[in-house]
Amino acid sequence: MAQFQRLVCFRTPKNVLSYGNAILPKGVTDARKATHAFLIEGNIFGAHKVTDKKVEIAKLESPLAFADIKTVRALGLNYEQHAKESKMPIPQYPIVFYKPATSIASPTADIKVPLMAQIPGLDYECELVIVIGKEGKDIPEEQALDHVLGYTLGNDVSHREWQIKRGGGQWSMGKGFDTWAPIGPAIVSSSVIKDPHTMKIKTILNGKVVQESSTADMIFSAKKAISFLSQGTTLLPGDLIFTGTPQGVGMGRNPPLWLKDGDVVDMELEGVGSISNKIVFEKEKAKL
Amino acid sequence: MAQFQRLVCFRTPKNVLSYGNAILPKGVTDARKATHAFLIEGNIFGAHKVTDKKVEIAKLESPLAFADIKTVRALGLNYEQHAKESKMPIPQYPIVFYKPATSIASPTADIKVPLMAQIPGLDYECELVIVIGKEGKDIPEEQALDHVLGYTLGNDVSHREWQIKRGGGQWSMGKGFDTWAPIGPAIVSSSVIKDPHTMKIKTILNGKVVQESSTADMIFSAKKAISFLSQGTTLLPGDLIFTGTPQGVGMGRNPPLWLKDGDVVDMELEGVGSISNKIVFEKEKAKL
Repeated sequence: MAQFQRLVCFRTPKNVLSYGNAILPKGVTDARKATHAFLIEGNIFGAHKVTDKKVEIAKLESPLAFADIKTVRALGLNYEQHAKESKMPIPQYPIVFYKPATSIASPTADIKVPLMAQIPGLDYECELVIVIGKEGKDIPEEQALDHVLGYTLGNDVSHREWQIKRGGGQWSMGKGFDTWAPIGPAIVSSSVIKDPHTMKIKTILNGKVVQESSTADMIFSAKKAISFLSQGTTLLPGDLIFTGTPQGVGMGRNPPLWLKDGDVVDMELEGVGSISNKIVFEKEKAKL
Repeated sequence: MAQFQRLVCFRTPKNVLSYGNAILPKGVTDARKATHAFLIEGNIFGAHKVTDKKVEIAKLESPLAFADIKTVRALGLNYEQHAKESKMPIPQYPIVFYKPATSIASPTADIKVPLMAQIPGLDYECELVIVIGKEGKDIPEEQALDHVLGYTLGNDVSHREWQIKRGGGQWSMGKGFDTWAPIGPAIVSSSVIKDPHTMKIKTILNGKVVQESSTADMIFSAKKAISFLSQGTTLLPGDLIFTGTPQGVGMGRNPPLWLKDGDVVDMELEGVGSISNKIVFEKEKAKL
C-alpha cells in the first residue's frame, strides 16, 4: 500500500534523482507548485516509507524513474466523442497499442520532433494514465483497482501521417519517438483518487483551450481496461496504461490543427495537476 | 564487442540463472544440443569475459534474461511472399508493432493460450530476431550492424481474430500474451553471422514443414530496419526486433490452418538453431 499521496521524482539541488511525497499547501493539488518534498526511502512498489527529510525540488522529472518503467500500453478511441470526431465506430473491445519506455518524458520536457516527423500531422492527446503497482494476470474487474499504484496525466503525442498512413495502419511508429509521452507532474495515489472517472481533463494550446472533457466519458473504464489487458498477460509494477483522449484533437478539426515548432502544449487533469511541453523541431540528426 | 559466439541463458543443476557461451561439437550450430557452456561473467552488453568454467546446462531459458529485455519491436509484412499471401500491398515503410517483454519465453516453453484466445485464429510466424547490443539514435544504415549484439530465432505467435478483427486493426493485443514470443536457443554473435540475409528459415508443425524460406526474401533488411526504427528513437541494449515472417502462415492457407491444443511448433533458422514449443490451452484463469 502506497504511503504517499503525490509521488514525485525529482532532481535535488545536488542533482540526485530522488522519489518524494510532494509538499503542497492545503487545497493545492498540482505538484508543479511544490518546491519541496518529503524523501521516500525503499521500493515505491513494495516496502517504502515517507521520511521526514524535507528536500528541495530542483527539477521535476517523469514521476516514474526510467529504470522503474516497464511496458507502456495505450488505448485508442476510448472516448465516445473522440471516436466520433475520428469518424470511427465505437470499439467493441479496447484497442491496444504500445509506446516505448524511451518516449516517457518529464512534465516540462521539450517534445523533440525528429526530421522525419516535421511534416504536417503532429497532434496532441491529453490522457489519464494508470500506473500499475502490483503484479497480476487475469485480474477480475472488481479487483482491478487494487493493482493501481496511482494516476498521472500524459500527452500521447501522435503524428497522424506516420500513425495512420505511413505506418501501414499500425499506430505505434507515429507515437513512439523519444519524449513523445510527457507525464506528470505526480503519481497521485489510488488512496487519494478512489474514482478515476470524475475528473475534468483539458489541453491548452498556446493559451487556448482545445480539448475539454471529463474522464467520465471514457468508453472502457480503468477497471475494465486493466482487467482486459491482464487476460493471459502479466501486468507488472511500473507498467503504464494511457487510457485514451477526449475529443478536440487537431486531426478532428476542419481544417486540421497541426502542432508546429515552438508551440506550447499545456494539459490539466483535475486533482492530478498539469504538464507543459514545448514543441521543438530538431535541426539535425543525433551524433553517434 | 561480444566475447561469445553463442550466448545462452540457462539454469545450472543448482537452478542458478546464468549466461554462458554454448559448447558445441565442430559443425553443430544448434545450442539446444549443448550440454555444457563456458560461464560468462560481467555485463553481456559491456565488459564481460567468457571464463574457462565449464558448467552443465540443466535447462535453457530465453537467451536474454527477462531483466535484460527492454523494448520488443516487430515488423509486419516484411517478406514479399507473405505480404502477397496476406493480400496486402508491399509496404513502403516498415510496419511496426510491439510485443511486451512478458511475451518472451524459452526455446522449449509451452505456448499458453488464455481462454479468450481459444477461438479459431491461432497462428505461427517464424522470424529472425535482432538483439541490440549498443545504444543509438538516428543510426545510419551503414553503421546499423555495429549496434547488433547478435541474432536469434523467434515465434511471433499471433491470434488473427484478436490481431485483426477484435483488435480494432491494431495488432499488438493478438500477439502479446504471456509466452507468445519464444526465442532462442542462443544469441549468435554478429561476429559469427556477418550477413543475416543468407539464412534458411522454416516452421515445422507436428512434423510437417509449413513455412520454408530464406532471410534473403526480407523487404527491409536488418540494417534498414535498425536505421528506420532509430529515427528520433533511442534503441537500447536489450531491445529486440522481430523482423517479420515468410509465407506459409496458417492465415494464408485455404482453408486456414489454425493451431490447436497439443500441437507442437518447431522452427529452425540456419546457423542459429531451433526452438520447439507446444500449444497448451489454459483450463482456467490464473489465481490471484
